[in-house]
Amino acid sequence: MPRRNAPFSIIRRLPIYLRILDNLIKKDVDIISSRTLSSRTGFTAEQIRKDLAYFGAFGTRGTGYNTVYLRDKLLKIIGLDKTNNTVVIGSGHLGTAFGRYNVVKNPYIRIVGMFDISNEVIGNRVEELTVEHIDRLPEVIEEYNVKVAILTIPSAQTQPVVNQLVKLGVTAILNFAPTKLNVPEHVHVHNIDLTIELQSLFYYTVLLEEKDSV
Amino acid sequence: MPRRNAPFSIIRRLPIYLRILDNLIKKDVDIISSRTLSSRTGFTAEQIRKDLAYFGAFGTRGTGYNTVYLRDKLLKIIGLDKTNNTVVIGSGHLGTAFGRYNVVKNPYIRIVGMFDISNEVIGNRVEELTVEHIDRLPEVIEEYNVKVAILTIPSAQTQPVVNQLVKLGVTAILNFAPTKLNVPEHVHVHNIDLTIELQSLFYYTVLLEEKDSV
Repeated sequence: MPRRNAPFSIIRRLPIYLRILDNLIKKDVDIISSRTLSSRTGFTAEQIRKDLAYFGAFGTRGTGYNTVYLRDKLLKIIGLDKTNNTVVIGSGHLGTAFGRYNVVKNPYIRIVGMFDISNEVIGNRVEELTVEHIDRLPEVIEEYNVKVAILTIPSAQTQPVVNQLVKLGVTAILNFAPTKLNVPEHVHVHNIDLTIELQSLFYYTVLLEEKDSV
Repeated sequence: MPRRNAPFSIIRRLPIYLRILDNLIKKDVDIISSRTLSSRTGFTAEQIRKDLAYFGAFGTRGTGYNTVYLRDKLLKIIGLDKTNNTVVIGSGHLGTAFGRYNVVKNPYIRIVGMFDISNEVIGNRVEELTVEHIDRLPEVIEEYNVKVAILTIPSAQTQPVVNQLVKLGVTAILNFAPTKLNVPEHVHVHNIDLTIELQSLFYYTVLLEEKDSV
């Protein structure tokens, strides 16, 4: 299968297809059309066919996609066909939400460590994890060959931690701190800024009020 | 100021500009160029000028933007110039993270209620909030004129809650449940699916391994 550097917009949709396929496979559904995938995702059938065709020919014209085959291909494309270990740095409520979710139902991904710098929380249990001092990070990253890290620490603390992660071989970071991280070109950072997401929603209430008052 | 139905991609960048302006104003910086805004955001200066020009002429050619003036305009455009109340439904770790953030440093937005259905958590304090039974939702939404809600409850529980929110006049929803919500056309839903965000990151580690092995 030829791999190309796909745009992030496509990459982000792949796990959505994956989840739908997993649910279908659980229900013993063998075949799914792009039209059905469309109604479950809200993306157009054309968009879905285009997304998947980007990575190869996985469907049969007029029939659809074999669910198990496509699921396995997607796992391989995303890189979730192996055990995929990650660590959470910052054990506040957001970090703990990840830690808890880990055991409950996070498919394909395993959080192998939770780290913090505060003695108040080090030693806390989050499901089967124990919050450890960040000094233990190098050991855990090496032991579990961790390439992806989740950062839920305050902005002021992120850059030194990121520098350390990069040095330890981490190549993808999910960052919740509202700050721009400096990383080498080979490292992929995905920022989620919950304040921004929330603030931008208010636009839609104002818009509506203005429409109402017309 | 003419308001048009701006694309969500622009709307999402406005709070980022807002935060940078707020920081500059705190440091008594009066004027900022689109080039400086560019280096702080990572967006191109052209993109920034285009984003802002969408809503009016706020800058002076060759000089830049007056920070206070632009901040106030942005607040108005986004709709954050008034008190903006919101509620959190679901008081797990993610909901609690929002509740805690509220008091600490969430600018412009006020969480006026946290709700749950589990007697185990009802009555819990999250900073100055007390987790209430979801039966109290209508009262709080009316009292505080709430138009935006944050949903951090399991997928199976979301649709009935969403139906209730819509009936109560909520017009924008930040949804963390990995499920597609059905809402009338006038209601804006923004989904954040943390599993999807995390899974998609693994793509970048695989890509890199393949490059390494070439």
